[in-house]
Amino acid sequence: MHYEKKRVLSGMRPTGPLHLGHYVGALDNWKKMADEYDCYFMVADWHALTTEYEEPARISSWIKELFLDFLSAGLDPEKSVLFVQSDIKEHAELTLLLGMLTPLSWLERVPTYKEQKQQLVNKDLSTYGFLGYPLLQTADIIIYNADRVPVGQDQLPHLELAREIVRRFNYLYGTYFTEPEGLLSPAPKLPGIDGRKMSKSYDNAIYLKDSPEEIMKKINQMVTDPARVRRNDKGHPEVCSVYSYQEIFNTDQKEEIAEGCRTASIGCRDCKKQLFERIWQELEPVQKKRKELQNNMDFVNEVREQGKKKALQRAEKTIRDVHRLMGLL
Amino acid sequence: MHYEKKRVLSGMRPTGPLHLGHYVGALDNWKKMADEYDCYFMVADWHALTTEYEEPARISSWIKELFLDFLSAGLDPEKSVLFVQSDIKEHAELTLLLGMLTPLSWLERVPTYKEQKQQLVNKDLSTYGFLGYPLLQTADIIIYNADRVPVGQDQLPHLELAREIVRRFNYLYGTYFTEPEGLLSPAPKLPGIDGRKMSKSYDNAIYLKDSPEEIMKKINQMVTDPARVRRNDKGHPEVCSVYSYQEIFNTDQKEEIAEGCRTASIGCRDCKKQLFERIWQELEPVQKKRKELQNNMDFVNEVREQGKKKALQRAEKTIRDVHRLMGLL
Repeated sequence: MHYEKKRVLSGMRPTGPLHLGHYVGALDNWKKMADEYDCYFMVADWHALTTEYEEPARISSWIKELFLDFLSAGLDPEKSVLFVQSDIKEHAELTLLLGMLTPLSWLERVPTYKEQKQQLVNKDLSTYGFLGYPLLQTADIIIYNADRVPVGQDQLPHLELAREIVRRFNYLYGTYFTEPEGLLSPAPKLPGIDGRKMSKSYDNAIYLKDSPEEIMKKINQMVTDPARVRRNDKGHPEVCSVYSYQEIFNTDQKEEIAEGCRTASIGCRDCKKQLFERIWQELEPVQKKRKELQNNMDFVNEVREQGKKKALQRAEKTIRDVHRLMGLL
Repeated sequence: MHYEKKRVLSGMRPTGPLHLGHYVGALDNWKKMADEYDCYFMVADWHALTTEYEEPARISSWIKELFLDFLSAGLDPEKSVLFVQSDIKEHAELTLLLGMLTPLSWLERVPTYKEQKQQLVNKDLSTYGFLGYPLLQTADIIIYNADRVPVGQDQLPHLELAREIVRRFNYLYGTYFTEPEGLLSPAPKLPGIDGRKMSKSYDNAIYLKDSPEEIMKKINQMVTDPARVRRNDKGHPEVCSVYSYQEIFNTDQKEEIAEGCRTASIGCRDCKKQLFERIWQELEPVQKKRKELQNNMDFVNEVREQGKKKALQRAEKTIRDVHRLMGLL
């Protein structure tokens, strides 16, 4: 029996340095998917523009950096297609074509559209491009006929829209695209060192590029169980942000650490030191690899070129088919 | 002193056979512009999709037909760049990029958007693509840095929008694009044989492909001055639709004919016969050329390929510059 791998498409916006939240929530997760799925991972630079168009300097240079991060974090270009969205103009073309058959109301009712417009009040997001964001996302996915998309809970409406657009396309022109399905990420959300969402703008992130000293310093700043004031006080791991990190980075020892905390057999300082070691164990090879790659940019550029070629091949085929189906011969 | 020609961009939607209205209003006008301007003329197939997306069969085949019509009508591929919009994916890419900085309200207030939505009630035009129509048009124009656009009165708001988008782009990223200016067409509107707007859907058009017999028959159907019942009655050219054709196709003799009508020295039958001769004088070489070209499709395809190459060269340069300016490096 012929077994064909399901195809995955995912991407990240190049808007700044990567932090542990990105690593846990995306890159590390992607690495695990690369064996099971036929994966397409992209630097979503056009997506970044939907919100950052007023300050191009905020994207510039991050595109190359993010691509470097993909490789440094261990994504294997032999296993997955790694590419930059704007290298594949066909995404723009498919967006234009899908726009013809997409009712405005479908886009207007996407919850993230309204929410983000309300939240990002210092940006003018009443633009045609921002409204079309989920349409571009749909094109990104279906141009490779990807049938699996890693999504967080908040992205489910986007996926639902993509499925709706696929159904409308197939209804109008004959069944061609597959309705993509979500792959809910198994990775829990990693909070920032202050307990809020990890984010550059909250200044609460541990970055992939941070030195061991910076990482240790940031871990030391983390608030533990407020009830555990002295070394001998018994702690409550379930309310401690350091412990929420242990659960992610120290899966083998987490039970032991929780027990030690509850019985006060280990102190917060030891706990933090152990956490630092695990995080550094994870990041040291990433940083080492990054330095190697930075000294070998020809290789990185060649990987980008190869990724472009592979993505293009499939995207061009889709566009040819779509042209035929929509009467553009 | 170095004199550089102004650049013109114009296009036609491939949605059916061309009629005399298209010929007079566009093709013949374009031919005259080809010496004075550096012209880009395109088959606007993506534009056709904005309204025809539900019936792809209505566009299919017309793309090639229209391109053939460009050449048959005498557009010279040595003088002007003749191309098909969807051959140049950069139009879609620039549309996507311009969309990022274009407020929705600018598009919503374009008068043709509301009007057409109201008029074409049998079509569902509340789509993202239809709203973005003038944005695609802006991209078509400025991707070649065209500074002159032939427009009818009803298209002026589209041009105004294009100018506004150019100003916003230049403000955000530094002056790069030129604000395009309108070239109001000197050609008067040609009515249909029933006096209404000439249109396929009114069944009142004389087509470029019509045989001499069909043309004569259609001219014979035209209503002349209703007050001129008998041959000896004096006529009023200013209320006669045949005369409105004479004004366009018979410029040398129009005074003479008007005088003859007013004095009843020529009858309607003679007048119609003269008109037929002038129209056929115009269309016979077009039909002859078309037959020649149909027997030499390799040449037609080569012209399309060459036009694509020339258009692409300039469009690619623009996109490279825009990428740099918007921070997509």
